[in-house]
Amino acid sequence: MSENKIPYKIYLEEQEMPKQWYNVRADMKNKPAPLLNPATLQPMTAAELEGVFCRELVEQELDNDHRYIDIPEEIQEYYKMYRPSPLMRAYRLEKHLGTPAKIYYKFEGNNTSGSHKLNSAIAQAYYAKTQGLKGVTTETGAGQWGTALSMACSYFGLDCKVFMVKVSYEQKPFRREVMRTYGANVTPSPSTTTKVGRKILEDHPGTSGSLGCAISEAVEVALGSEGYRYVLGSVLSQVLLHQSIIGVETKAALDKYGIVPDVIIGCAGGGSNLGGLISPFMGEKLRGERDYRFIAVEPASCPSLTRGKYVYDFCDTGMVCPLAKMYTLGSGFIPSPNHAGGLRYHGMSSILSQLYHDGLMEAVSVGQTEVFQAAEEFARTEGILPAPESSHAIRAAMDEALRCKETGEEKTIVFGLTGTGYFDMVAYEKFHDNKMTDYVPTEEDLKPGFAGIPRFPGNPIA
Amino acid sequence: MSENKIPYKIYLEEQEMPKQWYNVRADMKNKPAPLLNPATLQPMTAAELEGVFCRELVEQELDNDHRYIDIPEEIQEYYKMYRPSPLMRAYRLEKHLGTPAKIYYKFEGNNTSGSHKLNSAIAQAYYAKTQGLKGVTTETGAGQWGTALSMACSYFGLDCKVFMVKVSYEQKPFRREVMRTYGANVTPSPSTTTKVGRKILEDHPGTSGSLGCAISEAVEVALGSEGYRYVLGSVLSQVLLHQSIIGVETKAALDKYGIVPDVIIGCAGGGSNLGGLISPFMGEKLRGERDYRFIAVEPASCPSLTRGKYVYDFCDTGMVCPLAKMYTLGSGFIPSPNHAGGLRYHGMSSILSQLYHDGLMEAVSVGQTEVFQAAEEFARTEGILPAPESSHAIRAAMDEALRCKETGEEKTIVFGLTGTGYFDMVAYEKFHDNKMTDYVPTEEDLKPGFAGIPRFPGNPIA
Repeated sequence: MSENKIPYKIYLEEQEMPKQWYNVRADMKNKPAPLLNPATLQPMTAAELEGVFCRELVEQELDNDHRYIDIPEEIQEYYKMYRPSPLMRAYRLEKHLGTPAKIYYKFEGNNTSGSHKLNSAIAQAYYAKTQGLKGVTTETGAGQWGTALSMACSYFGLDCKVFMVKVSYEQKPFRREVMRTYGANVTPSPSTTTKVGRKILEDHPGTSGSLGCAISEAVEVALGSEGYRYVLGSVLSQVLLHQSIIGVETKAALDKYGIVPDVIIGCAGGGSNLGGLISPFMGEKLRGERDYRFIAVEPASCPSLTRGKYVYDFCDTGMVCPLAKMYTLGSGFIPSPNHAGGLRYHGMSSILSQLYHDGLMEAVSVGQTEVFQAAEEFARTEGILPAPESSHAIRAAMDEALRCKETGEEKTIVFGLTGTGYFDMVAYEKFHDNKMTDYVPTEEDLKPGFAGIPRFPGNPIA
Repeated sequence: MSENKIPYKIYLEEQEMPKQWYNVRADMKNKPAPLLNPATLQPMTAAELEGVFCRELVEQELDNDHRYIDIPEEIQEYYKMYRPSPLMRAYRLEKHLGTPAKIYYKFEGNNTSGSHKLNSAIAQAYYAKTQGLKGVTTETGAGQWGTALSMACSYFGLDCKVFMVKVSYEQKPFRREVMRTYGANVTPSPSTTTKVGRKILEDHPGTSGSLGCAISEAVEVALGSEGYRYVLGSVLSQVLLHQSIIGVETKAALDKYGIVPDVIIGCAGGGSNLGGLISPFMGEKLRGERDYRFIAVEPASCPSLTRGKYVYDFCDTGMVCPLAKMYTLGSGFIPSPNHAGGLRYHGMSSILSQLYHDGLMEAVSVGQTEVFQAAEEFARTEGILPAPESSHAIRAAMDEALRCKETGEEKTIVFGLTGTGYFDMVAYEKFHDNKMTDYVPTEEDLKPGFAGIPRFPGNPIA
């Protein structure tokens, strides 16, 4: 089909929607390192993991072999409520930038959770339901993941207990209300409902909470409640598997029009959206079928790939979860309080970390002011008000397109627009009022985080 | 195509998108009564209207003759950024209700303004631009219309001055920030920037403002500024014309699958979404080609169609706008302060008023608690968190479907889902906390509003 026939929005038909997730680990020569039991430093067994996670999800977590995994029909049906998501041609942004580059973005924000998180939430809820569980527990910061999980649990009639970081619970009551609309039980963390919560409140009276503490509370409740398991919205390999729906759809839409991207760009916090977007393309690269550039974009104030260490570390600040080998700033690292742009996670998915370590993917970090500038330009030209997280990818895509303007290259750029910013207007307000500042941690600032990385033979902290 | 092949979401292709608006007035035997100059009580001339409104929009306002009006190519291009909107088959809601009815809804919330308002905003901004104007002024309450207009003006490089009711400006800072993201100038109303604003502040120090006052300020600024006009987001016939895109798309999507609706339902505040949704179907009915039932759904606390009078009244509380013949509760009517569900306008579009008066459309009113109950049920089954306004239509559609369950009728119900409720979580919170109350005005409560309707020969207040 000729280039000028490409519509603004490429939609797959429902019958063209993917029926299988793609498991990039099957094509990786160097598999991601296994999760370790922090007590024994041995690889976590399925039996150990099944105490915390749903059975089928544990299988997916440990599966490095099967390239395709069938999406259960009930999940496919749910996906049809809000998927396929559109692949948008950014004609207006291209014109605005005056670039010869062709820019596409996969927009995952057109569902009530406002982001791609729902793709994994529905899968995790489904497996909990088929295992006959009563409910699941989780943590949420700003509330995107909690909202997605609430929607998914409501659909399957599962109980959903969300521990929401107290400061967000109080300052972002709207997300909380969305979760309540879907019937979730939302508790501000730290709370007096758990042992770890009570201990933290005793040690730090008046604390406004942290994601690490919320995870610890959610895990404690899952372990202590008959018929409950804990679920997590990013980082894990199972989550990247579910999010591969983004990449598989993107590839199908591009193939339909014979478009071959040169560069694929995504923001990276824990890595679920980026991992999902790039996976089928990465598969082609790993199999030597085609070459692509992949760029992970992270905040300069939380630069795990670009400035972290590739070692075993705790997945949570509370140190109750298994150890994962990943690029990390240390599980005790906390981004500067002026950081409003999301993507605050201290580490990076083991899969992406391995790919990056093997030179198969690039990474850049960007400052939050330039991110919000890109967000505003994007909103004004393309109409969609992007989430701060997603805007990291916008920034990098615009920079790439502007380089094409200089060189005259007609590159095809694809980026992931993970969500909308409707619940992030406090950050936008800061930006409009020129109250946003940038922060790049010094080497000194990074030291305390690195110091918290567990030391043991075979885990050299360079 | 067989019934079971109907997908969850019917999308038109971009090349199938309507290229013309449909003007229902051309098919009305009884035309809507003309706007009157309040000073002379004579029909407003084009020349008079052009002082306030853009030239081309005045033509559209006065056009009772042309059945189809071409959508300028630039507007079509913009529509492609977020349209066609999906026509959804509510399989899950049907199953949840256990009804034999087939339910469809046209979802207009998948754009950053969060509602259908953008369909008219982009048209009005376009005509202002092509007339060579510098900018436009408007008022906004909760901010849906202001957001849509900001987006449209940003796209065309027009200045946009929004007077936002002060209480909303203060209590709903997020909508304000969205408007600022699109470069709009947002002023809390009443303000000291206008004569009428200063007078109101003098008479009522500490007032939190009203829509009527905001309109008066916006009109004053438009009249007093070189190169500015005033624009309005509902009620006017030009707005219903632009919103006909909703109905024309809906009809095209239904036709594609050979579906013929029995009942078409929409919420009604000023009437723009309902008027737009039903217009091409109403055209068939008016031309005697096919029969449909149409149901306008309004809040019991602001019941203009079901309990108002069909007379000439002011369109605004400030009494600066022309008189329109419509079902009205009186321009001084203000819904009870406990009313959280939107649709607060005292009158109803002249077109819809005439159609209702002629028995071509039905109207029902519903209480806000039952509306939020429907909203929550809908969110949990269909996934989308609806705006309170839209949820009036959901309530009526569910009631209709439940009647079908009793009678066993397999009716096809289509309703308009005008927008999302992401900025309405305060109202949802009230509902969750059982702090929502219902209010049905007594005859006595309606008296002050009716008393304010202008008395003159030919305007009998029954």
